[in-house]
Amino acid sequence: MIRYINVKSKSRTELVNITNLIQNELSESGVESGICYLYVPHTTAAVTINEGADPSVQRDVLATLNKLIPKDAGYAHLEGNSDAHIKSSAIGASDFVLVEDGKLVLGTWQSIYFCEFDGPRHRRLAVKIVEC
Amino acid sequence: MIRYINVKSKSRTELVNITNLIQNELSESGVESGICYLYVPHTTAAVTINEGADPSVQRDVLATLNKLIPKDAGYAHLEGNSDAHIKSSAIGASDFVLVEDGKLVLGTWQSIYFCEFDGPRHRRLAVKIVEC
Amino acid sequence: MIRYINVKSKSRTELVNITNLIQNELSESGVESGICYLYVPHTTAAVTINEGADPSVQRDVLATLNKLIPKDAGYAHLEGNSDAHIKSSAIGASDFVLVEDGKLVLGTWQSIYFCEFDGPRHRRLAVKIVEC
Repeated sequence: MIRYINVKSKSRTELVNITNLIQNELSESGVESGICYLYVPHTTAAVTINEGADPSVQRDVLATLNKLIPKDAGYAHLEGNSDAHIKSSAIGASDFVLVEDGKLVLGTWQSIYFCEFDGPRHRRLAVKIVEC
Repeated sequence: MIRYINVKSKSRTELVNITNLIQNELSESGVESGICYLYVPHTTAAVTINEGADPSVQRDVLATLNKLIPKDAGYAHLEGNSDAHIKSSAIGASDFVLVEDGKLVLGTWQSIYFCEFDGPRHRRLAVKIVEC
Repeated sequence: MIRYINVKSKSRTELVNITNLIQNELSESGVESGICYLYVPHTTAAVTINEGADPSVQRDVLATLNKLIPKDAGYAHLEGNSDAHIKSSAIGASDFVLVEDGKLVLGTWQSIYFCEFDGPRHRRLAVKIVEC
């Protein structure tokens, strides 16, 4: 079964912390041990795992991506969001987290982030949790 | 069981749309619900999921990667393809897609691309489809 | 069951070849066919698969990452390791390898690397091996 969570962003580029939403899906699934697959069905967004304690890390990640892959750089694609497509492939539209004792096995400082690169918008993230 | 699909590129760097080839493997497997794992057994290629509608997106992805990681930049590796190795790690040699109702669960605009960074060549991509 | 391997680095940024350590875990698990999931529970490290034959490839990967994402670049995060967090998301904290006949299904030139971006340190990598 695939579950979907909704994600709302407020800026063009933003890392939205979705750790609690994913943990809620896991708790509802009742799975104790397994894998939690995360999949972004969009081409201008991504999912990543990084530090959750200091919000300045999120700012640095976005600022560096925006510097390396600027919004305007004479792209061929005429919709004005080529940078967002490129960032999506650079970070990746999928990820997984291990599950044990009914909990996401994250490192002490890790949070799960939905990466919005062409917001602000409403998005969906697919979650599939498998017991194994 | 691991299946292999063959991919042929015509340029040094190229995104080859392999969505239909993967869907064919999925259909032959008979799996209705599960995970489709994609794995590139090469060190100068990768796999990514991105927009399939406008080919200019593929061009922008490659042009940006080639600008950030140029072919010639005084690399230590003497085979002349260090940029391809670096791009492989930046994009990633593996990916997965969720499966439901016997179909790849892709977003409206998503296609699966084999990323050739040191072509033109013949390559292989490993596919493992698991019912779960 | 999740297993952990210990990784020790000697430099600030380093690619540590962990292929043999992972193959050992696989052999101990007794799994013949399946998936080997690799997960880094740290926010300034990553895991990647790349060429294992010529060590200069590892140097080129690190040198290019260090050029694109320099250690000091006026970051907001004050711990002095923002570059390491960004590199972690660029390369990715998770990966998987297919398993067949009790062996990791790697390409001829592929090795598995723990990517240290804020060493030297002791780290852990989570490994979960699933028969399927």
